[in-house]
Amino acid sequence: MSVLDPLVLHLSRLPGLGPRSARRLALHLISRRETALAPLVALLTDTAARVQNCQICGNLDARQPCGLCSDPTRADGTLTVVESVADVWALERARAVHGRYHVLGGTLSALAGRGPDALSIPALLARLQEPGWVEVILALNPTLEGQTTAHYLAELLDGRGLRITRPAMGVPIGGEMDYLDDGTLAAALAARQIMDH
Amino acid sequence: MSVLDPLVLHLSRLPGLGPRSARRLALHLISRRETALAPLVALLTDTAARVQNCQICGNLDARQPCGLCSDPTRADGTLTVVESVADVWALERARAVHGRYHVLGGTLSALAGRGPDALSIPALLARLQEPGWVEVILALNPTLEGQTTAHYLAELLDGRGLRITRPAMGVPIGGEMDYLDDGTLAAALAARQIMDH
Repeated sequence: MSVLDPLVLHLSRLPGLGPRSARRLALHLISRRETALAPLVALLTDTAARVQNCQICGNLDARQPCGLCSDPTRADGTLTVVESVADVWALERARAVHGRYHVLGGTLSALAGRGPDALSIPALLARLQEPGWVEVILALNPTLEGQTTAHYLAELLDGRGLRITRPAMGVPIGGEMDYLDDGTLAAALAARQIMDH
Repeated sequence: MSVLDPLVLHLSRLPGLGPRSARRLALHLISRRETALAPLVALLTDTAARVQNCQICGNLDARQPCGLCSDPTRADGTLTVVESVADVWALERARAVHGRYHVLGGTLSALAGRGPDALSIPALLARLQEPGWVEVILALNPTLEGQTTAHYLAELLDGRGLRITRPAMGVPIGGEMDYLDDGTLAAALAARQIMDH
């Protein structure tokens, strides 16, 4: 029994898994080496080898630049700034925005010592130097750190002739965007408001 | 996005994972290749290489025979027959029985075409030829197939001078043993009854 403990412990710390599901998963994989474990390891390794972060927006894709950055129909002057790739996917699933994305890679955090240079804020500023941008949607999580980062960015981007907006409040405070239902996300984005700071 | 879809789909079919947790897990692993994916793949591969099914009882362990079969204090004449390795672990966590185990590897199923030879029933009969056995506890899941298999085994083992028991009913019908709480398991095993067939 104890021989699977390190694997069970490791699995139980992955997002979405608890001790019990980690135990079942470990047993399932180790009991079915050829039919379950080998295909999973192959798929993980293969996907990791083919997928990379887009050099423009930070999204994950097999293309460089990613499909969203390469699509000419999305050059509509709108740039939606999000914390993580999961948020890009959530917004795309909800068809909540069109245009381009920019993945920050997290939020500012005094506690964790994450300043602007730890996020892709310099790259964001460089992208916004290019002509054609009309609106920046700061679609960060409705958490304290997300909103602190949104306010910081709104101030930073002030005076560049860009419309700075954020999704309508109505999303539950303290939640995470990736977990919201598509309807709430779409409604909140449709009612997005000019950001005053 | 679509480039992670095969991995997300594959993960979502693993026990304990749904579409949403599979998405988060895929993103987590692919976004953190060095710190999350590589250690997981190494641990899976390493564990699979070290762990094997015990040739005596079918349990998973790095030792051959497994720790439970090697432990001389467990030679008390009791053999607990279970469907899967997960059930061995559940009973061990609950300290519900002592003695040895025998993992059948499933249940008889007319529907799935699983007869006695698809399970480790021949190996069970061979083990019971050895002297010293007093009691066989048929601790199969309280499902239709589990109980059908238990009755089949009770009949098969009749007339060998062995006490054939099963856990007290009280465990919820239709459930799976691996999901029960330790207290229920321990109580049901403590009140185990002679099996009439």
